[in-house]
Amino acid sequence: MKQFDNEMLKLQSDSAVLNINSKKLAFTTDSYVVTPIFFPGGNIGKLAVCGTINDLAVSGARPLYLSASFIIEEGFSVDDLKTIVLSMAEEAQKSGVRVVAGDTKVVEKGKCDQLFITTTGVGELKQELSHISSGKNIQAGDKILINGSVADHGITILSARENLQFEEDIQSDCASLNGLIQKVLDAGINVKFMRDATRGGVATVLAEIARMRKAGIEIKEEAIFIRESIRGLCEVLGYDPLYVANEGKVIMIIDPKDEKKALEIMKQHSLGKESSVIGEICEDHNEFVVLNTCIGGRRILDLLTGEQLPRIC
Amino acid sequence: MKQFDNEMLKLQSDSAVLNINSKKLAFTTDSYVVTPIFFPGGNIGKLAVCGTINDLAVSGARPLYLSASFIIEEGFSVDDLKTIVLSMAEEAQKSGVRVVAGDTKVVEKGKCDQLFITTTGVGELKQELSHISSGKNIQAGDKILINGSVADHGITILSARENLQFEEDIQSDCASLNGLIQKVLDAGINVKFMRDATRGGVATVLAEIARMRKAGIEIKEEAIFIRESIRGLCEVLGYDPLYVANEGKVIMIIDPKDEKKALEIMKQHSLGKESSVIGEICEDHNEFVVLNTCIGGRRILDLLTGEQLPRIC
Repeated sequence: MKQFDNEMLKLQSDSAVLNINSKKLAFTTDSYVVTPIFFPGGNIGKLAVCGTINDLAVSGARPLYLSASFIIEEGFSVDDLKTIVLSMAEEAQKSGVRVVAGDTKVVEKGKCDQLFITTTGVGELKQELSHISSGKNIQAGDKILINGSVADHGITILSARENLQFEEDIQSDCASLNGLIQKVLDAGINVKFMRDATRGGVATVLAEIARMRKAGIEIKEEAIFIRESIRGLCEVLGYDPLYVANEGKVIMIIDPKDEKKALEIMKQHSLGKESSVIGEICEDHNEFVVLNTCIGGRRILDLLTGEQLPRIC
Repeated sequence: MKQFDNEMLKLQSDSAVLNINSKKLAFTTDSYVVTPIFFPGGNIGKLAVCGTINDLAVSGARPLYLSASFIIEEGFSVDDLKTIVLSMAEEAQKSGVRVVAGDTKVVEKGKCDQLFITTTGVGELKQELSHISSGKNIQAGDKILINGSVADHGITILSARENLQFEEDIQSDCASLNGLIQKVLDAGINVKFMRDATRGGVATVLAEIARMRKAGIEIKEEAIFIRESIRGLCEVLGYDPLYVANEGKVIMIIDPKDEKKALEIMKQHSLGKESSVIGEICEDHNEFVVLNTCIGGRRILDLLTGEQLPRIC
């Protein structure tokens, strides 16, 4: 960031907002190095498409076009590559985006780990929604919503990687959120900010928001849905589910007057059935994110330091 | 291409041409896995910036924004990373583009080869230049120009990789061509098509053009500039310089009436001092690219089959 010094990069939002021909475009990139490349609920290709679509969608943009660049280890199974590319094409099709550019590089055996995919996306951003990526309209009293359970992706990847076998069926929540988000925006909900809770999980996103807006956040632990199986695995493995990555969860900050309506719309969508209001923005010059626990305690959630779990995306 | 089935991808041009808000944008991506990552004349970072700028520029677009995504091997030197990023920033600055989005992933030691960089670019494409990327206006009689010596990049990389020591100083031609190309376009030269002669070299680009336009091409060997040192190395190592990759060379197809003017403009630019007219498009239903050799022979240049030299970019 220091070397590429420019205003767009400094904003550190999920997508850069470009001005071209006096129109606004959202632009974002991510490399995917997840291991294992196939996991319950998805694979590296589906994840790459969903992840880039989500970074555009949470910026308030309508995702339109993707590029996909593949770095492939010599000897990688062509059948696996076909399966992965097919799932990318299906996810793109389902989400209404087109993969229009690409590249393929093959490196010698042992010079990469099976397959890495880098996706870059371009989306159309309406002028009246361009405040979303900066979150500049967030204020005390705004409600914080999430579209369902947390920690599914990270725990699924870890379990798959370590070949942990459990009785419970768990799977990644990997999904494209642009459809759900578009429904909320189309209904005229005053969305102040959105971010998908990927690396660092829900707690990290909330801590980032608090710092960015110099505000406090109060969260009700009981309002955060964690599947029983995932909760159990987190306890066994020693992970705090609030810091575990999700790949199909968006945190929305909305005007309090729209709380009911937004929740209703989200719950009607297949990816939002378990949506809930998990807390609100409050005034606090300490910029604390306070978790009001089920047993009546109060705990401060800070940014995740270091990486809790590498190569989850 | 089969799975992502769409018209933009099928065109197989250097950039996809997007229609957004009734304006045209060029969009392109490439992963860079060159080894060694530092070489005479550049490094993986400079190469990534130049390569993506060039893919936009040869489509007739004005490069505006780049994203850069890094996959880094655990333990990679932070100083080397800084050097590489700095050279990316310098090249971007010099070429008038901004790096506005990025990602960083670190993988375990042995899971990638030092550093891979994926750059994606967006450029503005004027309606009146949108024919360039498809080459649909190419016709018999059009002149074929190149902005200088061939085979420098590929031979430099190979020499650096194999630690070959020679008396001659050789270096990669790695450079951003948007400035040179803009000068030609601004002068109103009727450019029918452009392509940078990277993987597969000049011969491959010419063979692609012949097939694409179902035309023939006549090339004069004596008009193709090859540095003596590079020519010697090609002979020793057994490579045909016409098939060796370049990273700062553009092949332009222009209207014959503009031949003199175009050559003059190109020669005035620091990256075009050794520009020459190397041949012309002709009618030939066999789609042959014929090289008229210096000793009076005629040789057919076909597409490069397989990869002559892996990981050159």
